[in-house]
Amino acid sequence: MGSKKSDRREFLKQGAALAGGMTLGAATNSATGQLEGPEAFIQGTDELVGYGKRSRFVTSERIAHGGRPSPDTFGLDFHIAAPLQDSVGVITPSSLHYIGTTRGAYVPDIDPDKHRLMIHGMVDRPLVFTMEELKRLPSVTRLHFIECAGNRANRRHTTVQETHGMTSCAEWTGVLLSTLLEEAGVQEGGDWLVVEGVEEVKGASSIPMTKAMDDCLLCYGMNGEAVRPQQGFPLRLVAPGFEGIFNTKWVRRIKVVDQYYMTYNDFGHLTQDPVNAALGYQIGPKSVITCPSGGQQLPGPGFYEVSGLAWSGGGAVSRVEVSTDGGQTWMDADIRGTAQRMAHTRFSFNWEWDGSECELQSRCTDEIGQLQPSRAQAGEFFNQSGSQPRVRGQDNSIQPWRIESDGSVHNAIA
Amino acid sequence: MGSKKSDRREFLKQGAALAGGMTLGAATNSATGQLEGPEAFIQGTDELVGYGKRSRFVTSERIAHGGRPSPDTFGLDFHIAAPLQDSVGVITPSSLHYIGTTRGAYVPDIDPDKHRLMIHGMVDRPLVFTMEELKRLPSVTRLHFIECAGNRANRRHTTVQETHGMTSCAEWTGVLLSTLLEEAGVQEGGDWLVVEGVEEVKGASSIPMTKAMDDCLLCYGMNGEAVRPQQGFPLRLVAPGFEGIFNTKWVRRIKVVDQYYMTYNDFGHLTQDPVNAALGYQIGPKSVITCPSGGQQLPGPGFYEVSGLAWSGGGAVSRVEVSTDGGQTWMDADIRGTAQRMAHTRFSFNWEWDGSECELQSRCTDEIGQLQPSRAQAGEFFNQSGSQPRVRGQDNSIQPWRIESDGSVHNAIA
Repeated sequence: MGSKKSDRREFLKQGAALAGGMTLGAATNSATGQLEGPEAFIQGTDELVGYGKRSRFVTSERIAHGGRPSPDTFGLDFHIAAPLQDSVGVITPSSLHYIGTTRGAYVPDIDPDKHRLMIHGMVDRPLVFTMEELKRLPSVTRLHFIECAGNRANRRHTTVQETHGMTSCAEWTGVLLSTLLEEAGVQEGGDWLVVEGVEEVKGASSIPMTKAMDDCLLCYGMNGEAVRPQQGFPLRLVAPGFEGIFNTKWVRRIKVVDQYYMTYNDFGHLTQDPVNAALGYQIGPKSVITCPSGGQQLPGPGFYEVSGLAWSGGGAVSRVEVSTDGGQTWMDADIRGTAQRMAHTRFSFNWEWDGSECELQSRCTDEIGQLQPSRAQAGEFFNQSGSQPRVRGQDNSIQPWRIESDGSVHNAIA
Repeated sequence: MGSKKSDRREFLKQGAALAGGMTLGAATNSATGQLEGPEAFIQGTDELVGYGKRSRFVTSERIAHGGRPSPDTFGLDFHIAAPLQDSVGVITPSSLHYIGTTRGAYVPDIDPDKHRLMIHGMVDRPLVFTMEELKRLPSVTRLHFIECAGNRANRRHTTVQETHGMTSCAEWTGVLLSTLLEEAGVQEGGDWLVVEGVEEVKGASSIPMTKAMDDCLLCYGMNGEAVRPQQGFPLRLVAPGFEGIFNTKWVRRIKVVDQYYMTYNDFGHLTQDPVNAALGYQIGPKSVITCPSGGQQLPGPGFYEVSGLAWSGGGAVSRVEVSTDGGQTWMDADIRGTAQRMAHTRFSFNWEWDGSECELQSRCTDEIGQLQPSRAQAGEFFNQSGSQPRVRGQDNSIQPWRIESDGSVHNAIA
């Protein structure tokens, strides 16, 4: 390694070295590795033709979110977390997208040919659309995350799936809500919407008209195919950057109204002041290191790419910093590609681990200048509490991971 | 509709009108649509928790590519086309990604813990990597299409799946090939690579070193999870913009060599001149309208969003034009989001169909100024043939769709 020219190591940033000989065991040996073929081949079947599957060696799965009732109970709380520890890039595969609902595990089994969307209330022209009619309208495709407001770490959590698995990111395709509202003609004073989905308790959310006209989408497409049933098939509202619960699934009715209406979905927003209520919806700037993360094991000292996800309800992520000393000093991470507004953004940081105990942290800044707070700061913000913060919904505080000298990785929230 | 203010119809471009009352049947009726709940709910099961599924009403599937032997025969040609007629956005779901192989339907069933990548030949330090070692290296995430050189329409094809289904686009994550080659230290005169996969006939491709050092990726991630077995699990070379066959699957060996080596994969490149051979690899600027497309049915005159995909091996798509009169006049389409280099790019065009017979076409221009040719031009280029062009591999000519007055859509290649 020492004789390499510096122009051949452009990827080596922030002082970290790709320590091939020292840390990547076989990497600098002569080419003596086993290069035999696979022991078997997967037989050709209809499955291989029509709709392919993943490898039997890939077993990454969603789990019931820590502390929630088991989904086997079909209780009202059905919270299923995505396996962020195995994530690569920014897309969450639709099969692994997180689920949050307060209405049980039952998913509406909707025939799209029979589904209708109604727009009514304070509009000039009430409208009813079939799915085929919606698909004829001008559409957009955008990358957006959705996150449950309750996606927060506690000291009992072991893995990043438990601490942060209640967020996912997909390529959403659909019609801008503004397109439909302009067709309907919103009347003077129609400053709020109630968006209702097909659910046993008629889950609905109040959305400010300004948000609806800005960037909300009614989506029929997700990651290149139809929205999945668990994500609202055939039609889901995506309210970029707003808490997950406002991204109404199985949308069938949008009513334009004159004020904020308290609905079953609004249990976390016990204020009827529209300004406070609206401000409370937005997910803060947030990030988490997904690799290495809690429960993983570093094989030994040497080079590692530290990788994670950053996002914000306030717009695009503009900066991500990483600390390897528990937040005392910070260094810029690389942001992969161009950060999209209200989308997961993959960051990476080249790191040389010397084998001693340390603590990894990440924090992000969004395009409007919001900086992700420390846990202490977040605790003060939410509770005006001091030494022992107990943060609640929308906790966007920094997640620390402690690396022991044996290479084991642990949730460092104390 | 006539009374609507023009500032409320910003989305109505290029003279097309969203003719709600006239064309979208129920859309301007009063809100009398059926708004009853679904007839049933999908029961909660392990499948709903761990790894979700699509709706039973969504049945879009890949098909054996037209004219090829049935995959049931397990013949050498196994070409499976993606259902582009149902595509939304730019991501192809991994389950629907096209497959092209000349080696049969059998997919290597590889245990990633046992898999190795060897880099050897004209290098200072031969290297062998495990998958875990590769994943510790600096990685990138990029959107790239892959396309079979034989992805071309003929007059027997009915649907866009048949004419253009041998291309797909995914979010790929992996290590830059240049990172590994710099570690190995390429020796003077090592101007070519042979990249070999785990296959019964040891499929391999020759790649110029300039391409390898520019933007080739060794990918372990695809659309947010592990690369699928049919796409090369656990490791695939992505050579952006090069013909599909150069994107070697199940990669186990990369040998640095001094010249172009003819391999089984190179049947289409019967030249040993490196410059000609390399130039012949690159996919031309290409586009196709996916909706409306062959076999679809327009319910009647009125507003439609014309939507399609554009891509080029020469870089990012910079412009897409649509013609509704068989190529006599052209109008700019909207490009959705920011076009990525060597990636599918979704375009759309707002169109008012008057109910008369017409012919839709699209053509794209890429960032280096290449314009997609007409079928006649492509025929001349490939064969110096005149009135009856018979184009072969890498045909990137314009695809015309004829709309009959009854709303039926047909392949207009004569």
